[in-house]
Amino acid sequence: MYSIGIDVGGTNLKAGLVDESGAILAVERIPLGVFPGAEKFAEILADLAKAVMEQGGVTKEDISYVGAGIPGAVSGGTVLYTANIPMKNVPLAELFRQHLDLPLLLGNDADCAAVGEWSCGVGKGTKHFIVVTLGTGVGGGLILNEKLYTGAGCGGEIGHIVICEGGAPCNCGRKGCWEAYASATGLIRLTKEAMAERPESALHAIAAEHGGVEGRTAFLAAEAGDETALAVCADYANYLASGLVSLINMLHPQTVALGGGVAAAPEHLLLEPVRKLVAEQCYARHTDQVPAIVRAELGNDAGIIGAAMLGRAI
Amino acid sequence: MYSIGIDVGGTNLKAGLVDESGAILAVERIPLGVFPGAEKFAEILADLAKAVMEQGGVTKEDISYVGAGIPGAVSGGTVLYTANIPMKNVPLAELFRQHLDLPLLLGNDADCAAVGEWSCGVGKGTKHFIVVTLGTGVGGGLILNEKLYTGAGCGGEIGHIVICEGGAPCNCGRKGCWEAYASATGLIRLTKEAMAERPESALHAIAAEHGGVEGRTAFLAAEAGDETALAVCADYANYLASGLVSLINMLHPQTVALGGGVAAAPEHLLLEPVRKLVAEQCYARHTDQVPAIVRAELGNDAGIIGAAMLGRAI
Repeated sequence: MYSIGIDVGGTNLKAGLVDESGAILAVERIPLGVFPGAEKFAEILADLAKAVMEQGGVTKEDISYVGAGIPGAVSGGTVLYTANIPMKNVPLAELFRQHLDLPLLLGNDADCAAVGEWSCGVGKGTKHFIVVTLGTGVGGGLILNEKLYTGAGCGGEIGHIVICEGGAPCNCGRKGCWEAYASATGLIRLTKEAMAERPESALHAIAAEHGGVEGRTAFLAAEAGDETALAVCADYANYLASGLVSLINMLHPQTVALGGGVAAAPEHLLLEPVRKLVAEQCYARHTDQVPAIVRAELGNDAGIIGAAMLGRAI
Repeated sequence: MYSIGIDVGGTNLKAGLVDESGAILAVERIPLGVFPGAEKFAEILADLAKAVMEQGGVTKEDISYVGAGIPGAVSGGTVLYTANIPMKNVPLAELFRQHLDLPLLLGNDADCAAVGEWSCGVGKGTKHFIVVTLGTGVGGGLILNEKLYTGAGCGGEIGHIVICEGGAPCNCGRKGCWEAYASATGLIRLTKEAMAERPESALHAIAAEHGGVEGRTAFLAAEAGDETALAVCADYANYLASGLVSLINMLHPQTVALGGGVAAAPEHLLLEPVRKLVAEQCYARHTDQVPAIVRAELGNDAGIIGAAMLGRAI
């Protein structure tokens, strides 16, 4: 049997036909454009699913279910709300079934990435596993007791634990959320602050060369030996580790996987110092069970694979 | 059928015979004194269990199991380590069985309090439930998907999420842990800092009257209308809410129960402002599913009842 995973982005929809090992056998992708309403949206999802079936040479009878990763909160077959698409309390699975007679399973998009890494990536075989995605924001997903955990619906908003009470403003309305420090956006802010203080730093030349300050700017300058950039990288690793230790003290997983653009930073500037800080600080050091901190490995495919594997985790 | 719950404190052991409704039918209590070694400790636990059976007029055949709440980390029938008692990797259930042929279930003491409130107190009927104990430290327990959650062994250390990076030192070795602000110890520190700044505050007279600054000093002075004390209470509520929102954003329970001495503070000075802050800040406000914030209700019995109910939660 196969399943189909659909990754619902703010601007694009990507669907994949996935086999039981997690291999993607066919992919279709379309722009979402202006949101056409929930009814039409359900039809588009069904059409995408039909398109990947056709491309993969399989029929409805070969498919267990379709999974969709939604940028928002879901409950059962209902979309509770979405951040960038206007849907609230939409019975999407029911609407979908009017166009394609298959179960539609729903997951939050970050949760789907966690399910993907857990079922087919670096989290395979673990009982308790956390993915932390370091992108524009800090997202993530929790696999607890071999199931996706969302609590009463909105669990897993791991970017929104405050690490600096009264600190940098966060999009969620609070101040000092982990996301405001450990996201690429937070890293760019730290980099710009350091540049303003240190006009002699190589950060300026490297930023100019790449058309502006990016998440990787500090890592590039640090690799060239710039002291200011090295300090920015150390600060960033410290903020990242701070939230990780809080997560680990609360949930004690076997493995934490870091994904998103920033996780691609050189190992000795990010993962190594973070591992050291976590090992020094987390409670699990008392029982010699410090979780492994690793890079996520499925990259952009995590969303499709995770959506297609939702049936194993919910 | 009955079960027996044993609450292992740093200085005392309390055992209770508990029926299926959670009622305590008999209690025995002895001082622990100098730790006599793991073998002897297992024998003392067995003797205590026998004593409550005798007092309650029941026999071994009427008992499903004995549960024990341990101040430390456990895994299955093994004590991994304890904070104030010298045990490391002790197969306590096995040692216990040499003296009394009943299963010994182990739980962390704070986890047992959560199990107690979930099975017989304010958490009854919830699927996801968190107890936060505001005492010398900040402890707690997580009931997720109707089971006690401990992750790979050390999960649920909810006092050790950092809310003020680089802030007040914590006993765990980190700086700025929630425990350093939201515990009674943290509240006493906030009170003393305010007193040092405000010699005219009524806090001084109230502290003198009660023989020193306590957790309740700020609440007593605030009730008498003292401005400085009102500000301390507001600051404390803010720190408490900060960690609660982080917990809720991560785990989204239906109910959070506050226990420990500080939770007894007047409702309008603590629970009401905390509920307001949580409702304004947590992610679940987007789906109108803000968790209930309530007072724990089992008090000192929570440990015995929870240990006796461990079989329902693990």
